[in-house]
Amino acid sequence: RSHHPVAEMLDLPFLPFCVLLGGLGFVCVAFVSAWCQHWRGGFALDGSAQTFNWHPVLMVTGMVVLYGAAALVYRLPSTWSGPKLPWKVLHGALALAAFGLAVLGLAAVFRFHNDHGTPNMYSLHSWLGLATVLLFSCQWLAGFSAFLLPWAPAWLRALYKPVHVFFGSTILMLSVASCVSGINEKLFFSLKNGTTEYKRLPAEAVFANTLGLLILLFGVLVLGALARPSWKRPDADSPDSCQVPAPLR
Amino acid sequence: RSHHPVAEMLDLPFLPFCVLLGGLGFVCVAFVSAWCQHWRGGFALDGSAQTFNWHPVLMVTGMVVLYGAAALVYRLPSTWSGPKLPWKVLHGALALAAFGLAVLGLAAVFRFHNDHGTPNMYSLHSWLGLATVLLFSCQWLAGFSAFLLPWAPAWLRALYKPVHVFFGSTILMLSVASCVSGINEKLFFSLKNGTTEYKRLPAEAVFANTLGLLILLFGVLVLGALARPSWKRPDADSPDSCQVPAPLR
Repeated sequence: RSHHPVAEMLDLPFLPFCVLLGGLGFVCVAFVSAWCQHWRGGFALDGSAQTFNWHPVLMVTGMVVLYGAAALVYRLPSTWSGPKLPWKVLHGALALAAFGLAVLGLAAVFRFHNDHGTPNMYSLHSWLGLATVLLFSCQWLAGFSAFLLPWAPAWLRALYKPVHVFFGSTILMLSVASCVSGINEKLFFSLKNGTTEYKRLPAEAVFANTLGLLILLFGVLVLGALARPSWKRPDADSPDSCQVPAPLR
Repeated sequence: RSHHPVAEMLDLPFLPFCVLLGGLGFVCVAFVSAWCQHWRGGFALDGSAQTFNWHPVLMVTGMVVLYGAAALVYRLPSTWSGPKLPWKVLHGALALAAFGLAVLGLAAVFRFHNDHGTPNMYSLHSWLGLATVLLFSCQWLAGFSAFLLPWAPAWLRALYKPVHVFFGSTILMLSVASCVSGINEKLFFSLKNGTTEYKRLPAEAVFANTLGLLILLFGVLVLGALARPSWKRPDADSPDSCQVPAPLR
């Protein structure tokens, strides 16, 4: 695929990339957990601020890291031959696990708000975040109905596949934007006049800002891997697998 | 390209899409201007809060709307034949205009902060936003050096092109995430105890939250248009134009 020796030298294979990406995903989960444990008082299930702390941990783990893993299943070269069904089940199961964590993450913030008389769903972060999870639920249900249930005709699957792929990347992008706006918002809430102000950039702010940038990097790497032509399943029959117009093929 | 009559029926051509997208871009600029004019006191150049108001307007106009227009130049079918140079100049000039507005937008917020003794560069929004503009400056300089100056050899251009394309989409994604976190942050600053709180979702909050979602929609539509195989230049010689491995072509 690469025509120049320099290009071939720089061409990273998918599996080492996956190891690096998995390491970065682990670092993101470790950072968000450490932030909530060390600076925000740890975790609980009693409706207190410690209940809220499950929200960032579950959203980052579910909607970014597990979601990214689910999105990349079909980039594994071992999925390109043999029966498709086990890989479809793995893709759907990882996405369902991601969705489950997201629902628990939403339950944590709603519980915290309701126990403190704080209104729900007023900030742009909340609008965007809920829209992202709702879109994800539609995506999962439509994917399950079209690709795992046996009833959908082949033409409908072929028609829906590029739509599913497009919304797959879009939902990850929206998740990452939700995380960034949420971390920013939480730091403004937490670092007020009482403690060291956000403006003075205390250690917590540097740590959580870095977490935001790491989440962005993870999202960009997953989106880049999904878009990379040489990592896609070589499937010449699919209408979206080649951009050369049909008469030229 | 589309094999099924339903797919052909749903296939939107690029030019009507551009008209819709241009309309949406105009609405984004109108919304951010109306927010700053109607609720935030309008515009000035004296270092006051009215100076800050240039920041959201210039960033949305430059880093989202003009940037999106620059990114889509090569999707115009008229760019696919004839001399490439005029289109390269148009792409570079639109990107340079976007960059110029972004620099003015940064100047507005630094001037406002400095005149009020507010520290710069502490929030995740500021880290992300500045990283985005810095990445954009590298992208512009590298693109200018590789594609507009006559010195770069063809193999270097072919090697750099997919990198330029990848960072083109990435920078737009980062811009949109910066806008969303910035709008969220500004609403928490502006709607405090003195006025109607953000929590109570006054008209300004609904309006600016909607602006955030419209900017996201614009970004997603541009990224979707860039990724759409049938809208790419049919250029079978380019290593990234077809994902079928070379031996199968």
